[in-house]
Amino acid sequence: MMILNRRILLSTLALLPALRSTSASAQGADPLPSWNDGATKQSITNFVARVTTQGPDFVPMDQRIATFDNDGTLWIEQPMYVQLAFILDRVKALAPQNPGWKTKQPFQAVLDGDMKAVAASGEKGLMQLMAVTHAGMTSEEFAKIASDWIASARDQRFKRPYTELVYQPMLELLAYLRVNGFKTFIVSGGGIEFMRPWAEKIYGIPPEQVVGSSIKTRFEMRDGRPILFRLPEINFIDDKAGKPIGINQHIGRRPIAAFGNSDGDLEMLQWTTMSGGVRLGLIVHHTDAEREYAYDRKSHIGKLDKALDAAAINKWTVVDMKNDWKRVFASA
Amino acid sequence: MMILNRRILLSTLALLPALRSTSASAQGADPLPSWNDGATKQSITNFVARVTTQGPDFVPMDQRIATFDNDGTLWIEQPMYVQLAFILDRVKALAPQNPGWKTKQPFQAVLDGDMKAVAASGEKGLMQLMAVTHAGMTSEEFAKIASDWIASARDQRFKRPYTELVYQPMLELLAYLRVNGFKTFIVSGGGIEFMRPWAEKIYGIPPEQVVGSSIKTRFEMRDGRPILFRLPEINFIDDKAGKPIGINQHIGRRPIAAFGNSDGDLEMLQWTTMSGGVRLGLIVHHTDAEREYAYDRKSHIGKLDKALDAAAINKWTVVDMKNDWKRVFASA
Repeated sequence: MMILNRRILLSTLALLPALRSTSASAQGADPLPSWNDGATKQSITNFVARVTTQGPDFVPMDQRIATFDNDGTLWIEQPMYVQLAFILDRVKALAPQNPGWKTKQPFQAVLDGDMKAVAASGEKGLMQLMAVTHAGMTSEEFAKIASDWIASARDQRFKRPYTELVYQPMLELLAYLRVNGFKTFIVSGGGIEFMRPWAEKIYGIPPEQVVGSSIKTRFEMRDGRPILFRLPEINFIDDKAGKPIGINQHIGRRPIAAFGNSDGDLEMLQWTTMSGGVRLGLIVHHTDAEREYAYDRKSHIGKLDKALDAAAINKWTVVDMKNDWKRVFASA
Repeated sequence: MMILNRRILLSTLALLPALRSTSASAQGADPLPSWNDGATKQSITNFVARVTTQGPDFVPMDQRIATFDNDGTLWIEQPMYVQLAFILDRVKALAPQNPGWKTKQPFQAVLDGDMKAVAASGEKGLMQLMAVTHAGMTSEEFAKIASDWIASARDQRFKRPYTELVYQPMLELLAYLRVNGFKTFIVSGGGIEFMRPWAEKIYGIPPEQVVGSSIKTRFEMRDGRPILFRLPEINFIDDKAGKPIGINQHIGRRPIAAFGNSDGDLEMLQWTTMSGGVRLGLIVHHTDAEREYAYDRKSHIGKLDKALDAAAINKWTVVDMKNDWKRVFASA
């Protein structure tokens, strides 16, 4: 009931601005309190005011589509993607049932905590780890495995659940856009079924608005009940040029605002902003080694190089995490 | 603005029942005026009352997912799928630029109007026809081609646009479900990009709630602008066992109501109804040769055989078009 009421309230609020034909400025209190005042914050509020105010830049509500990368944009991605931490934990949890893994790569490397050897196993090794941790069960069983894990796992540096290591300023941005009639989507290279079990509770984004990478599934009747069985075979990689493809496949319209943090988001930002009209492209630049992490052009995870150059050329907003955000993480 | 206001109005209306915690019975006027009173209509209104009324069968609004097949369920599919009529028309329109087609199958058969020879070209022939009519252009170009065609094409028997050969009782059902807090999706074997250009105007279903078959696309920058180029290669067939897979991929939750008319919908109906809880499975049985068509177990198009047997076993509602519907088509 809590969730239902919150959803109804948010949905109702989302309708108000358009019904009253007013812009976001009518809202009173600062909708982005964790953002320092300045050019970055202003680029967001200016964009929202322009597309929601009657005039040449007005965009009807049903076309206010906003897409958000997840890893490094909505939550932490260092020192490794959260989904990789999930894979490593699952291999350890499944090891007692698979005694042969002790002497077989890449499983041995995972069990020994030898991340260099895991990396050395390359794409083939990663696929083997994916197969044993993500396939071989029903879609509902996997959702429970992912839910249980996310509820218990802790980040080693911050000693907190990953779902608390989401960025408070971005949560405010999601809510601010929704209140202004935007429909918010996740468009992530991460696994679609890995994100869906918690995305609604944490981000307010329902399963049908999550776009991500996926493996193939097979429909079958088992004991007279229909199931979807997860297969160890890639279906779609929702990264780089895959992002506009995933957006078109899933959403079927071009976003007017897109949010990312790495070169994996370059094509999504191009697709969103380079089509005429007032558009918002935004990149979260991780510049805060103290409160979170500082990385960009040379990082193995969340490499931000070409997209940083493209941001300057295309006038995308670049968030300087250290200076633009009053706080980084959501409250516990 | 018309569309915007209608959408806002519908969305607002959709919130009211849940906000007031009342059931559909509070609505006053008959929400399904084109349905004759009787067991079929009652099975629909009973279901909606049960899942929207506080009590053991109540379903929170965000879980009220309803999926609709398109061909034969929402609009006409005889004597050939509308999308096949599109293909044939497009081949004829493109023939002057392709003089070689006059002597090359399956194109020659299309140009000669020899449907037996078209059928004889089999799956390989159909793929060739798909390739030249659905691929080789950008996604936006294809949307315009489909929009232009649907605006001008006419059904030969009824002499009306296909978008007027949608079933009035099903339009009422879509609206009735939405007013009761359901999110309505199309889940069709038809092409996702063929349906999206008109689905919102005709059915009130936005692009992001259309699931269908698709071909692959490639992202590229062309003259400094990002495009998606349509490739002559199947991406996904959203039919039969593909429907639950498409539903899971796209929506990420199990529907509580599903509507179909043929064996292509069997697995969607199983997936929806055989999972515990109060569920509605409904099959439109084409029994009205006078007002529309009568066909089922032996039809080449929209064959309804296994799903009709399954309906009896699983207590799905079977609509007898001739006796349950006061009128068939939407008004002009």
